[in-house]
Amino acid sequence: MSEGNGNSAYGRKAFKRSRSHFTDRITADGRDGRPVEAGRYRLIASRACPWASRALVSRRLLGLEDALSLGVVDPVQDDRSWRFTLDPDGRDPVLGIRYLSEAYDARQPEYPGGVSVPAIVDVPSGKLVTNDYQQLTLDLATEWKALHRQGAPDLYPAGLRDEIDEVMADIYEDVNNGVYRAGFATGQKEYEAACAGVFHRLELLGQRLADRRHLVGDSITEADIRLFTTLVRFDAVYHGHFKCNRWKLTEHPVLWAYARDLYQTPGFGDTVDFDHIKRHYYQVHTGINPTGIVPLGPDLAGWLTPHHRERLGGRPFGDGTPPGPVREDEEIPAQGRP
Amino acid sequence: MSEGNGNSAYGRKAFKRSRSHFTDRITADGRDGRPVEAGRYRLIASRACPWASRALVSRRLLGLEDALSLGVVDPVQDDRSWRFTLDPDGRDPVLGIRYLSEAYDARQPEYPGGVSVPAIVDVPSGKLVTNDYQQLTLDLATEWKALHRQGAPDLYPAGLRDEIDEVMADIYEDVNNGVYRAGFATGQKEYEAACAGVFHRLELLGQRLADRRHLVGDSITEADIRLFTTLVRFDAVYHGHFKCNRWKLTEHPVLWAYARDLYQTPGFGDTVDFDHIKRHYYQVHTGINPTGIVPLGPDLAGWLTPHHRERLGGRPFGDGTPPGPVREDEEIPAQGRP
Repeated sequence: MSEGNGNSAYGRKAFKRSRSHFTDRITADGRDGRPVEAGRYRLIASRACPWASRALVSRRLLGLEDALSLGVVDPVQDDRSWRFTLDPDGRDPVLGIRYLSEAYDARQPEYPGGVSVPAIVDVPSGKLVTNDYQQLTLDLATEWKALHRQGAPDLYPAGLRDEIDEVMADIYEDVNNGVYRAGFATGQKEYEAACAGVFHRLELLGQRLADRRHLVGDSITEADIRLFTTLVRFDAVYHGHFKCNRWKLTEHPVLWAYARDLYQTPGFGDTVDFDHIKRHYYQVHTGINPTGIVPLGPDLAGWLTPHHRERLGGRPFGDGTPPGPVREDEEIPAQGRP
Repeated sequence: MSEGNGNSAYGRKAFKRSRSHFTDRITADGRDGRPVEAGRYRLIASRACPWASRALVSRRLLGLEDALSLGVVDPVQDDRSWRFTLDPDGRDPVLGIRYLSEAYDARQPEYPGGVSVPAIVDVPSGKLVTNDYQQLTLDLATEWKALHRQGAPDLYPAGLRDEIDEVMADIYEDVNNGVYRAGFATGQKEYEAACAGVFHRLELLGQRLADRRHLVGDSITEADIRLFTTLVRFDAVYHGHFKCNRWKLTEHPVLWAYARDLYQTPGFGDTVDFDHIKRHYYQVHTGINPTGIVPLGPDLAGWLTPHHRERLGGRPFGDGTPPGPVREDEEIPAQGRP
């Protein structure tokens, strides 16, 4: 999850990602008191944040747009954290709040922890339900099944969960979170260990993906989503801003083709806003980019070039189908996109 | 030239490179009172600094190593600027000084300007003669002819000077200094103008070099030296640290082959110390890299791959020959090099 203004990550100790605090689960049978119900919950996400972007992709792939509405926060937090300044009057039109922290406060007054996305808010009460970025998308894939679109893929198939969990654990440690440990390192050794870990894992993943189209099985799973959300940010921010610069994604033939394949798949690239991504990282992390200047590069045109990964076989949506077009009110403005 | 600790470049106004202050010329006929003379002068350079590195390349190509001795400063300045901490007891063995500023003070007591490299010091008096980085290498090429090695190339041929000067003026403005204006920009617009200028000029230079091996004429000239010293630093520092990240040099087939061609030519690559380069920029400019962390990347192995530029014809050394091997006492330690 992305929390605070990013600067809280600096300190004398190694960067450590806080655990999510609110972990209520929304389930099919409502066993936690939160039953799945169309229209009752609202997903609050930043298109800048890789952890929140998992949910943006899952929601699209599963066709949950009508059942689970979406609020998108400004990519640049202020000292009160994530805010709805992109909406008319600066208020989320459904929740009526200006800051995501108001939903946290409604859940637990004077909650001292960070305010993070993704967050799911209970619309009737205005209270935060969960900001558990690790469980949230797994539940969308499994507990929300009754509300999935026809032809939705199975993103967390029962027979492959052990393998998916194992792959995702490595991706989380070395890639998703590894880039942050590199970028927020305050010492050379700490940085070098994290950066080396990022590239070591990416090389292994590149080997794994050389002759198979997807990470686990022969269709898109949650594991692909979690790798994608880091890869799509790699050259735009992690390479320079987080100093993960051994090579650019575009220089690794396998991973670059893999990332383009997903990017060009409905539900992936259409959730990506490079403008939000770049402005968030470069303007918020003044501890590593004091000027707040946002680089002009990289050239993004390559994302739409042929990837030829279909030659590897695989069935991206398994027995299902790709999602339809993006809802008009969720289309991403052209600026900053390829 | 590189001066101070780099932070003086920050301010409310656009980055502006100070003009050299000491511009005495060392000439063949001694008309400025400074005659060319073997062993009388000492070149002080930082291998990190692109302006000083011009002189390192010229001196090698022209075979001036015995005539003009070399002192190399620590790539990381302290608050008294460039220092001889790489030498035994932290003193330049010929001049006996610990800081380059002592030679400046000897020339003009309490000189208030910046201390910059390249600098040429008169050994008998210990006084700075010139820090005029624009004129210095032209004089090595033309005024020091009597001391050139046999087979030295003509780096500033009389018949091509107008064209060389014109090409170098554009390279200076948009490339050599353009990357600094991008990197030290304090505002978004200022940065964007500089960065766009860098890539616009590089594209034009790439077109120029698509079917000719060198920038002017068919042999190496001063113009090639001046473009090389920026290109060799491009991916290692300017791409990330100075946010010149539209593309990496390695992504531009023509310029990347051109840069490798020169790098692999005796006198160019053997003057380059990537370790000095990276440590200088990333550790000194705390205004844009507060942690001082030096990135692990980029992978440098590509510098020694075949460039195939010989197919374009051209005679790198004209009627001359390449320089011999590097003096043993000037060899660059292996760390950080490809």
